[in-house]
Amino acid sequence: MLSSTQNPRIKHLLLLQQKSAQRRADGLFVVEGQREVEHCLAAGFVVQTAYVCQEIAGPVSLPQTVEVVPVTSHVYERIAYRGSTEGIVAVVEARRTKLSDLRLPKSPLIVVLESVEKPGNLGAVLRSADAAGADAVVVCDPLTDLYNPNLIRSAVGAIFTVPCVACSTEECITFFKEKGIQILTAQLQDSSLYYDTSMTGPTAIVMGTEATGLTDLWRNAADAHIRIPMLGQLDSLNVSVSAAILLFEAVRQRQTLFKEK
Amino acid sequence: MLSSTQNPRIKHLLLLQQKSAQRRADGLFVVEGQREVEHCLAAGFVVQTAYVCQEIAGPVSLPQTVEVVPVTSHVYERIAYRGSTEGIVAVVEARRTKLSDLRLPKSPLIVVLESVEKPGNLGAVLRSADAAGADAVVVCDPLTDLYNPNLIRSAVGAIFTVPCVACSTEECITFFKEKGIQILTAQLQDSSLYYDTSMTGPTAIVMGTEATGLTDLWRNAADAHIRIPMLGQLDSLNVSVSAAILLFEAVRQRQTLFKEK
Repeated sequence: MLSSTQNPRIKHLLLLQQKSAQRRADGLFVVEGQREVEHCLAAGFVVQTAYVCQEIAGPVSLPQTVEVVPVTSHVYERIAYRGSTEGIVAVVEARRTKLSDLRLPKSPLIVVLESVEKPGNLGAVLRSADAAGADAVVVCDPLTDLYNPNLIRSAVGAIFTVPCVACSTEECITFFKEKGIQILTAQLQDSSLYYDTSMTGPTAIVMGTEATGLTDLWRNAADAHIRIPMLGQLDSLNVSVSAAILLFEAVRQRQTLFKEK
Repeated sequence: MLSSTQNPRIKHLLLLQQKSAQRRADGLFVVEGQREVEHCLAAGFVVQTAYVCQEIAGPVSLPQTVEVVPVTSHVYERIAYRGSTEGIVAVVEARRTKLSDLRLPKSPLIVVLESVEKPGNLGAVLRSADAAGADAVVVCDPLTDLYNPNLIRSAVGAIFTVPCVACSTEECITFFKEKGIQILTAQLQDSSLYYDTSMTGPTAIVMGTEATGLTDLWRNAADAHIRIPMLGQLDSLNVSVSAAILLFEAVRQRQTLFKEK
């Protein structure tokens, strides 16, 4: 049982949590919580090591391929980054999904973020995308670290249930044009109300940042510009809320296509 | 110019930020940021005192009724609770809005939260409610502190632009029945899809907590039960996201009633 926070493996784990450079260099990231580890395994990720505090976790069943390392509650407190936690922190192999890896249905529904202001926002978008049954989330900012702990936390598992791709805007536009996926950009200027726009065909909804909106590359590539009407005094919605409103309008329009569980 | 963090007024300000008991006892709360103070004044709140760090804020124009107290950047750092800040922290008189104070249009659109798990969630719901032009947000938990700093921060001003009432569930149900406002409860059991339910008439959308849902009081008082279809693997949406999806469906159905700015 590991009992020292100075143990080299624990130190390495902390580096993986704290430094995206370390995650990139090692091709590894950290997942915390039993349900999250279950989603992670179900999605086919390779879990290398699970650090388990049995006092907190109770009996844990993991595949034999996972190395289980028991740790004391003292060590666990140091490595747990969430408030309410479940006694398990795992080191997982990163996976770089490309656009060409996506297995898309006949009428895919995709969310694109041109860039990510806060990792927590991307996590919340993934959560909304999972709920709406979206087929992928694409981040057009190849430097985005999809394995940031704040992202994983706010996604509450959706980083494993929704395919997530990081690529350049150019690649992404080319891919959509080739596949015949209509591009709907969320923007105020020259736009139609989102509920007056058909989303029943293959559709990508593209959103910019709250601060600066979308670049011309996307605006010019768009098949239609859509906006959510702002009926209050503040003119602002969180990006994950905007994504959910647009995605669930697609769900409404496609209700004969979708099936509830 | 106040230069000591030990000044009794600064100490009192910090207590108002940190302790809801202090806010209740004094009937005061704290607002940070120039835009927020503007929204607060525009909504008719009485701003007693503005602590201003001129180095950060630059020239600030406030009504003559507001006492302006210049503070050093050292003091300001201590009293600012937000990351990106604007050099102004104000002490404002609390206001207790009752259901009977609400001025409602012919077909009001109201959001009700049965209780509030996190103040930040209520702030995010207020932000969504502002965007959708909702007429009020009601929290059926009379102990809710509407002036919690995390709530004010996450509402980005919506605590001032959307009327917000805290009252008991019984009061609220009686009010809606008297006013002929239909009660739609968000729940999975015995429910219709939200987009198959008319929201064009006077409507209150009632939501429980993410963890425990709604109590029977609300379920039994409901005119209809509605659900957002969960098409992913996680079965979970943030309450402010759910509120936005439901509110914007009302916006869509009412599009001839609403006007964009």
